[in-house]
Amino acid sequence: MSRLTEHRLASEIVYNGKILTVRHDRVRLPDGREATRDVVGHPGAVAVVPITATGEIVLVRQYRYPVAKELLEVPAGKLDKGEQPEDCARRELEEETGYRAGRLEHLATFYTAPGFTDEIMHLYLARDLSPTAQNTDGDEFIDIEYYTASQVKKLLADKEIIDAKTIIGLLMAGLGR
Amino acid sequence: MSRLTEHRLASEIVYNGKILTVRHDRVRLPDGREATRDVVGHPGAVAVVPITATGEIVLVRQYRYPVAKELLEVPAGKLDKGEQPEDCARRELEEETGYRAGRLEHLATFYTAPGFTDEIMHLYLARDLSPTAQNTDGDEFIDIEYYTASQVKKLLADKEIIDAKTIIGLLMAGLGR
Repeated sequence: MSRLTEHRLASEIVYNGKILTVRHDRVRLPDGREATRDVVGHPGAVAVVPITATGEIVLVRQYRYPVAKELLEVPAGKLDKGEQPEDCARRELEEETGYRAGRLEHLATFYTAPGFTDEIMHLYLARDLSPTAQNTDGDEFIDIEYYTASQVKKLLADKEIIDAKTIIGLLMAGLGR
Repeated sequence: MSRLTEHRLASEIVYNGKILTVRHDRVRLPDGREATRDVVGHPGAVAVVPITATGEIVLVRQYRYPVAKELLEVPAGKLDKGEQPEDCARRELEEETGYRAGRLEHLATFYTAPGFTDEIMHLYLARDLSPTAQNTDGDEFIDIEYYTASQVKKLLADKEIIDAKTIIGLLMAGLGR
């Protein structure tokens, strides 16, 4: 334990939702004083940058209720209980886009917003795509769109991609400029 | 309104914390059916990539209670009520690192996790730094660390930077490889 660590003194679950759990904790700070911390518990997620044989990038457009906007994103989804991130990446890619990944390469694993949630995101690059059937969740409405590398570079330069995991995925796939 | 839009039917605040608000909403899906959505309301935040005159990158190490780990991040912080993102970026940079930014360049604005929160993050590059005095919030314990560009490239390549806004900031500052 380092001298920056905050120690839990008490923990109360203040909301237990279908996906999210919210805890209100009391902690001991490094200088001995006390403070409170609200934490959003999340099951973790994956995101996938799918690139076709002709070099096109497959993105999904969907309405994001929390921000009340349609966003253009890489395919992504939450981990099922006990599911391995790579299995989840293959499953979500197939469900959302109808493509099966021949090759999956791990790009990064990161926390999306570690100031208030434990959500961890595993990010992959998918190649050697073969078509299957799109099969979204019952409450997901998704459009599939194809972009060339130069179109993606322009979208990034024009600041039209405004989803964190999508920016990271496209930059890490070498589509920055 | 597009055909992907979800319409709010009812909204209930299930938790009202110091920083976060959690809503449980009932929505009308594009196909007419109903679903529920849990949304974490957040005030929004800024992050800054500070680069010194000698080309060193200033990072902060702090314990992140939600993920129970020390993370190496770019300086960042929440927007005060009514505060402009650029003012917040200057304030947080000064509070966390003790540097005043001579020049501030907007790199990106993005949603950190639009599947469940409205948190928006404004990201800047700061140059022409002049020293003032570090002045953190009462419950923040932060170490300041300096890295050369090649050290940052190695940290990214080794997947040792695991905070989303920090990855985006460093990649957008041209420190990818």
